[in-house]
Amino acid sequence: MPCALFWPEKEVKMKFTAQEVFDAYDRIKPYIPDTPLYESVHLGEGDRRYFFKLECFQPVKSFKIRGALNKMLTLTEEERERGVATVSSGNHGSSVAYAAKMLGIKNADIIIPGPAPKAKEDMIRFFGGNVLRMGNDYDEAHAEGMKYIEEKGMTYIDAYYDDFKIYGGQGTIACEILRQNPDIDTIVVPMGGGGLSTGIAVAAKAIKPGIRVIGVQTEACPAFIKSFEDKVCYEEYPVTGDTLCDALVGGVGRLAYETLPEYIDDIIEVKETTIRRATKLMIKDERFIAEGGSCSTIAAVLDERERVGGKNIALVISGGNIDGDLMTEILTK
Amino acid sequence: MPCALFWPEKEVKMKFTAQEVFDAYDRIKPYIPDTPLYESVHLGEGDRRYFFKLECFQPVKSFKIRGALNKMLTLTEEERERGVATVSSGNHGSSVAYAAKMLGIKNADIIIPGPAPKAKEDMIRFFGGNVLRMGNDYDEAHAEGMKYIEEKGMTYIDAYYDDFKIYGGQGTIACEILRQNPDIDTIVVPMGGGGLSTGIAVAAKAIKPGIRVIGVQTEACPAFIKSFEDKVCYEEYPVTGDTLCDALVGGVGRLAYETLPEYIDDIIEVKETTIRRATKLMIKDERFIAEGGSCSTIAAVLDERERVGGKNIALVISGGNIDGDLMTEILTK
Repeated sequence: MPCALFWPEKEVKMKFTAQEVFDAYDRIKPYIPDTPLYESVHLGEGDRRYFFKLECFQPVKSFKIRGALNKMLTLTEEERERGVATVSSGNHGSSVAYAAKMLGIKNADIIIPGPAPKAKEDMIRFFGGNVLRMGNDYDEAHAEGMKYIEEKGMTYIDAYYDDFKIYGGQGTIACEILRQNPDIDTIVVPMGGGGLSTGIAVAAKAIKPGIRVIGVQTEACPAFIKSFEDKVCYEEYPVTGDTLCDALVGGVGRLAYETLPEYIDDIIEVKETTIRRATKLMIKDERFIAEGGSCSTIAAVLDERERVGGKNIALVISGGNIDGDLMTEILTK
Repeated sequence: MPCALFWPEKEVKMKFTAQEVFDAYDRIKPYIPDTPLYESVHLGEGDRRYFFKLECFQPVKSFKIRGALNKMLTLTEEERERGVATVSSGNHGSSVAYAAKMLGIKNADIIIPGPAPKAKEDMIRFFGGNVLRMGNDYDEAHAEGMKYIEEKGMTYIDAYYDDFKIYGGQGTIACEILRQNPDIDTIVVPMGGGGLSTGIAVAAKAIKPGIRVIGVQTEACPAFIKSFEDKVCYEEYPVTGDTLCDALVGGVGRLAYETLPEYIDDIIEVKETTIRRATKLMIKDERFIAEGGSCSTIAAVLDERERVGGKNIALVISGGNIDGDLMTEILTK
């Protein structure tokens, strides 16, 4: 830590370190078992072997349980009493609800936009959350939600943008991968806001300095690629065209933007058509149900095998919450 | 053990006991982590909750790894040297191959019928087995295979019919279920040869005497139901019509036939049309890839909820090796 005498607090730029991840690992381990690292039957070629890190096997079918759990395990008794809240109708909302239930935190308010589908509400309720509908879209829900959370004195559980504890939790995936197969020399990870990729990259390089970590973005929203090209942290970024990768769209997290350049080896932009092909391969041939966004890592291998490189490659399959009708459509085309 | 002086060996009818399962549990635990017991999102009704025991998450996507591992862990050093073999082109063949690799047993010969599809051979090779094609169908492969295995002095790893170690391994599922959720009061299990259901029933009743264990058979091959009705152990039984349950057809194991009446509470016969509906629900809505045979337990709930009964019900989802084209067809109809 810099000395407070010379660095006034508001200027202290805290650095996200691997220790944050290692602490998270010890913290969350009693609550969630390791997800499997299974070898792909169909992707291997020559002496290259690919392994799926199956976060789609988590109880909420998403890696987001890791960050949510880590955050909640660091709350004081008083904070737990006042409860937790977040704004999300997707995997993060379910993860916060589930983690709160697991830890016996009674108030877990999940704020979703007014028009969000009933099925999303049902899922969050199933995992134990109180659902509150606010505003007419995500931005309105977020604005109203943050006001509500502040008034209630609840702890806001950040989806990914800037919370060290969330980044730390997501990074525990790297600890598991390298414990499960110390020969892994390349980790490929989908990039949305950057919490997952930052956590993994920082931890992986601390454990095994020579390892390569490669991010993947969809062509529909290459926010990190453009941010690093333009040297501008695009906290919002538009989506172009249709995408299978709901979980990967939106802007970049500032903490990720500041941390990643030192740790990430490459960021590959993949085509939506390849992501579709990769999702079909994953479900039909490998027989694992994974979201389009997660299959972006497989798409990177299909289109850019040499650029991905490596001999023992771990592909992070971050979630398995794909819509049933969409899955059927992908399988039949 | 009965005294050898009074009971000549050939007349000793050994009894399969829960101790066999508990020993297996200790033996195999270091090698395979518990599979999850996740609550169904869509099956619950009133105060009834259903939980999937997801054996489709095993590395070979089948519970059969349990019995294979348990058996191999009891071999002598000399037996390990001579190697293991079995006759199976399906989940059991892959499980034997995988378990042998995990335990460093170098010779694992998997005998498959001459005309078995290339994809099945590839899968067994992927998991580390030597594939030998023999005969023109399963019966011929079995006859030639057994001769080969005897000549080579290898240890035959029985698929399920009569090996205590195989039954013991499969039964470890009951130990996990009741450790994961001690409130489970009903276990529903698919029945093929009977190793899985016998292992589970015997162990579950030893751990929690009041628990109910319910077997499920497809209408296409109700071998156990007829065996118990007719008081004849049908070691072979015909298949009527098309079935989604490849893994559940064939005759009954003698050990299961002798053991089960004391332990099983009910056997429900389910329709193939319901199994199809159950498989679609499992893949599309619950988003777990499971074989038709495994989804017979879900089918039992769909058609006979009251007969299944219970408040906290575990449905054993024994495997996830469904053909990709068949899966697509089920999803689209």
